[in-house]
Amino acid sequence: MGKTIAQKIFESHLVDTPFEGTYVLKLDRVFCHEITTPVAINDLIERKKDRVFDPTKIKAVIDHVTPSKDSKTATQSKILRDWARRNNIKDFFDIGANGVCHAIFPEKGFVRPGFTVIMGDSHTCTHGAFGAFAAGVGTTDLEVGILKGVCSFREPKSIKFVLNGKLKEGVYAKDVILHLIGKIGVNGATNCVIEFTGPVVDNMDMEERMTLCNMAIEAGGTSGICFPDAKTVDYLWEFIKDEYKSKEEAIADYSKWRDDDDAEYEKVITEDLSNLEPVCTINYKPDQIKKISEMKGTKVDQVYIGSCTNGRISDLRIAAKVLKGHKLADGVRGIVSPATPKIYKMAVAEGIIDTFLEAGFCVTNPTCGACLGMSNGVLAEGEVCASTTNRNFNGRMGKGGMVHLMSPASAAATAITGTITNSELYKG
Amino acid sequence: MGKTIAQKIFESHLVDTPFEGTYVLKLDRVFCHEITTPVAINDLIERKKDRVFDPTKIKAVIDHVTPSKDSKTATQSKILRDWARRNNIKDFFDIGANGVCHAIFPEKGFVRPGFTVIMGDSHTCTHGAFGAFAAGVGTTDLEVGILKGVCSFREPKSIKFVLNGKLKEGVYAKDVILHLIGKIGVNGATNCVIEFTGPVVDNMDMEERMTLCNMAIEAGGTSGICFPDAKTVDYLWEFIKDEYKSKEEAIADYSKWRDDDDAEYEKVITEDLSNLEPVCTINYKPDQIKKISEMKGTKVDQVYIGSCTNGRISDLRIAAKVLKGHKLADGVRGIVSPATPKIYKMAVAEGIIDTFLEAGFCVTNPTCGACLGMSNGVLAEGEVCASTTNRNFNGRMGKGGMVHLMSPASAAATAITGTITNSELYKG
Repeated sequence: MGKTIAQKIFESHLVDTPFEGTYVLKLDRVFCHEITTPVAINDLIERKKDRVFDPTKIKAVIDHVTPSKDSKTATQSKILRDWARRNNIKDFFDIGANGVCHAIFPEKGFVRPGFTVIMGDSHTCTHGAFGAFAAGVGTTDLEVGILKGVCSFREPKSIKFVLNGKLKEGVYAKDVILHLIGKIGVNGATNCVIEFTGPVVDNMDMEERMTLCNMAIEAGGTSGICFPDAKTVDYLWEFIKDEYKSKEEAIADYSKWRDDDDAEYEKVITEDLSNLEPVCTINYKPDQIKKISEMKGTKVDQVYIGSCTNGRISDLRIAAKVLKGHKLADGVRGIVSPATPKIYKMAVAEGIIDTFLEAGFCVTNPTCGACLGMSNGVLAEGEVCASTTNRNFNGRMGKGGMVHLMSPASAAATAITGTITNSELYKG
Repeated sequence: MGKTIAQKIFESHLVDTPFEGTYVLKLDRVFCHEITTPVAINDLIERKKDRVFDPTKIKAVIDHVTPSKDSKTATQSKILRDWARRNNIKDFFDIGANGVCHAIFPEKGFVRPGFTVIMGDSHTCTHGAFGAFAAGVGTTDLEVGILKGVCSFREPKSIKFVLNGKLKEGVYAKDVILHLIGKIGVNGATNCVIEFTGPVVDNMDMEERMTLCNMAIEAGGTSGICFPDAKTVDYLWEFIKDEYKSKEEAIADYSKWRDDDDAEYEKVITEDLSNLEPVCTINYKPDQIKKISEMKGTKVDQVYIGSCTNGRISDLRIAAKVLKGHKLADGVRGIVSPATPKIYKMAVAEGIIDTFLEAGFCVTNPTCGACLGMSNGVLAEGEVCASTTNRNFNGRMGKGGMVHLMSPASAAATAITGTITNSELYKG
């Protein structure tokens, strides 16, 4: 019987099968940030096991609250920093060099097709864009991963999306994933890997694929995965060019990381997205979706552009193109958080930061920022935010706040009018 | 008998003298930010006196924790924002348009020679750089000021510094004020206005004078004051050019705001500063000063450049000149917070932001930031920070942290070496 990409990755990394349907996998990467890893570090210290299985396979960053906002977050950062130094983890990104984990780790070339990746963060599924199996885990799994380099997973069931057609102008990966979550629901992919395939995905660049995979978890998916192709190799080339004689060779090698024709799926969902329109969430679940055009007149207090979903350079370019020459609507606050220092530098060089500043936006340092409601734009009771982030549950960005998830283009257009607006109204 | 500038300002604004030595003054400006003003607003609402004496004379900004870091700070900002809208206060600077109060208000031309200014912020003395009487006040005074446009003060005793000579290269206003505080002590000017005069002050630009006056409070001073001159008029010209036929006319008019030859002072301190060297604070009081050269080998974990003391464009230029082509020392974090959006934009345009990013600094949005230990770089227990801010008391920038106050030049040099360092070692 044929296999899914997840089954192939599981097979190639299998260390043990202690119970039927439970697989212990060797890990290629353990990613860490300052919110969840310190808990694991402290427990490892207490158990007198302050070691790491392989310091070159562990990558760490301060990203959730940065720079520190209080003694607690300063201490969390210090625990991670001291641990990285003590255990010789060279790839630790401290304040100034730091950015959103799911943006900076791909940027540094840490993820490859066929890799297994864990992190104490639910949006670890983002890295599946490279054809990796990447999953968010809890503290115990993280501890074992850090110490032993393995992690145990259930049988990898898969759901396959075959996305046909061609997206209209003004429709982006964010619209696609919101639409798909709307279609299958927040529990639609629970305990499943989601394969994103078809011409729409083939046409997406790596950043768009990361946006797509990033929100797999919002449908309950363990990981989102795209099959590696020439675009994957182009993105990774600077990091892999010593491993392969040519890009073609790399593409050929990576081509093993895809499904077989006769692989078995829990579900295969085929859809033509040629008529998809820009969408956003309503209410408090990411599967509650409406067309932007149906939200006309919905006022917002704040527009937030950033996060592991949509804080990359292509996102900022799209938003800046919409914003160029416009100002924030009266009474609307705009906040933009470039996801990494590299993105920030590019945005300065390309005049994008200038466009945001001219429009009246607050430009923060690279950070997860307002997305998780712990810094850089927490909402007050009753406030409404148009946001390019990935979660809209009640209180996510501040108690009593309402979050409408949407694409950077829609968010930028909304910033200009002060009400939820389709970016097509502001064609460059 | 001759008068000091403070006595002249008091006389010209006197409304009542309810007790001997107590003067009720008419206010030209009431400045507000989101930490102290909401307390006053809520009390005014409770007393059914939600009014303002004159919306054109009240200026408000969100600056201490921005963008909001939690529900509490989001609510504080919302209270200020709603109050400003309700009371028709046009000059309210919300997130994106906001910056450090004592930087953005002068930048907008809100302060003039001879003005009386209050704010619920101890560094309100900064505005004395324009020849104004500007003082930090408590909640009750702030409430009365907002409602009635008056504030009561004690008799304005004055201390006069006559600063002779010429500062050496690499020695800045920050070194001067730290040196002077070291000389007279943290209680040296309690209940007094400090007049800064002499050739050293005459040679300073307005930004340097603001740095000087900013820290008058650290010696206990009610206000710091510099006499207005051609530099004051140059700085203000875009705002006053309709009031005067020429700059000369403005200079002549403003010349009334200075001391009389036979004015009486509590103390007159004359000193030649030609041999002053760069200094910094040690321990937890701003009057505990050493030469930077005596601090050799003192390690730091963080360097912070910003605040109402030293976050202006001239400060960033000086720091960037020192940093250009260098990197942060290993294990040292650098954070820079431009004080206002205008400064931020200038710093982008001049390549200063690039220099900071290339050196490995974290560039935050305009904010008071780490200075007050409430956001953007709070220290963990045992950490040491070289900082261009104004306060170093125990816990100011984080519980258990040590702060060494110094000039932007010294802070930048310290960032490069990781130990407290004189900027002269990095001459451009």
